[in-house]
Amino acid sequence: MANLYHFPFCANSRFVRLVLAEMGLEPTLVEERSWDRRDEFLLINPAGTTPVLLEQSGTVIPGAAIIAEYLDETRGLGLSGRRLLPEDPTGRVEVRRLMDWFLVKFEGEVTGYLVAEKIAKRFMSSSQGGGPPDMNAIRAARTNVRYHLKYIGYLIARRRWLAGDDLSYADLAAAAHLSCVDYLGDVPWEEDEMARNWYARVKSRPSFRTLLADRVAGMPPAAHYADLDF
Amino acid sequence: MANLYHFPFCANSRFVRLVLAEMGLEPTLVEERSWDRRDEFLLINPAGTTPVLLEQSGTVIPGAAIIAEYLDETRGLGLSGRRLLPEDPTGRVEVRRLMDWFLVKFEGEVTGYLVAEKIAKRFMSSSQGGGPPDMNAIRAARTNVRYHLKYIGYLIARRRWLAGDDLSYADLAAAAHLSCVDYLGDVPWEEDEMARNWYARVKSRPSFRTLLADRVAGMPPAAHYADLDF
Repeated sequence: MANLYHFPFCANSRFVRLVLAEMGLEPTLVEERSWDRRDEFLLINPAGTTPVLLEQSGTVIPGAAIIAEYLDETRGLGLSGRRLLPEDPTGRVEVRRLMDWFLVKFEGEVTGYLVAEKIAKRFMSSSQGGGPPDMNAIRAARTNVRYHLKYIGYLIARRRWLAGDDLSYADLAAAAHLSCVDYLGDVPWEEDEMARNWYARVKSRPSFRTLLADRVAGMPPAAHYADLDF
Repeated sequence: MANLYHFPFCANSRFVRLVLAEMGLEPTLVEERSWDRRDEFLLINPAGTTPVLLEQSGTVIPGAAIIAEYLDETRGLGLSGRRLLPEDPTGRVEVRRLMDWFLVKFEGEVTGYLVAEKIAKRFMSSSQGGGPPDMNAIRAARTNVRYHLKYIGYLIARRRWLAGDDLSYADLAAAAHLSCVDYLGDVPWEEDEMARNWYARVKSRPSFRTLLADRVAGMPPAAHYADLDF
């Protein structure tokens, strides 16, 4: 149906892969390493970031949250009961608040650091910023992830899914980010049983399967990464 | 109609003030200094950031882009020809792309540095991170602003307004950010005549007036800040 320019460990790209799979859509995946700043890629997204969805019509939709809004507007109505953004304005605010929490805040405080330091730097040349990981950045991320996990636990103690009664973009955004951190073994699951059970629920969905098959060459995932009963 | 928790030199708050004024809505402005991390404020927005819109009904809407979506959904239809988010999905993608460009990317590369270093640090205690400005951060922002200005000039050479034929959230987001940087005298207007003319057009709108009246105590704006024919 469309091309998705992504990087397998770009958590915001993973979010879009989950959304497309939940909607029953199968994009052609095109791996893009944003640090290469490829001219053809910059032409379709001047911001130079993944993910970008390219429709067969030629319409370019850049950015995870913008893709989510676009897919809801163009395919959401066909999903009826399985729509990932609620219909009422107040419900939409809560889903968008939490989607932003994970796609932007969690990315900036946790995933961005870990993926850059542990994964992306392996693939970058030294002029692109490659080299050994900065342990201070990794330590900061490992500290930050703890309060986010607690926040998920807090929400899920009060609601069936993160933003309310139904699975929504909020759950997929949070789980996409946690899946990257979990691959690296940096989620302290033992600190929050509620958060862990919620993650096991999301991870068991068929939409999650392809994410669990991703591997970084020479860097196997944490032992429980693809285990649905971790 | 509602309370807007804002900081006068938080560019994302300025964006929401412009949006509300363009819609003919007059919020009660409540000044919030996010670095104080006030308990009552954290209760309504756990992310601790401005802006936050609090409706009389008690509905809390946190974050500039989320407020923009919410206002379009709850008040947009009544604006007919003056709607700030177009109706067609492709037009919406372009407005959202540029809104995100300024609210997130420009904030992260330009406004965030300048406002933190030159303004916020004056009000912060030393434990909050107050103190003298970091000149490296200011220099980085002054370098970054140049390519953003060029990008505005590039877009406006091809379109009437930033995202197309009509004034949209994209123009208000860009102008809100530039207004903060302009107060500090850090926009090299002489480098792009097209961008300068576009900004003069937005700045002349009645919605802009209250922004031009804002002052930082002991720090007057650049000479041309409130001048409509700068």
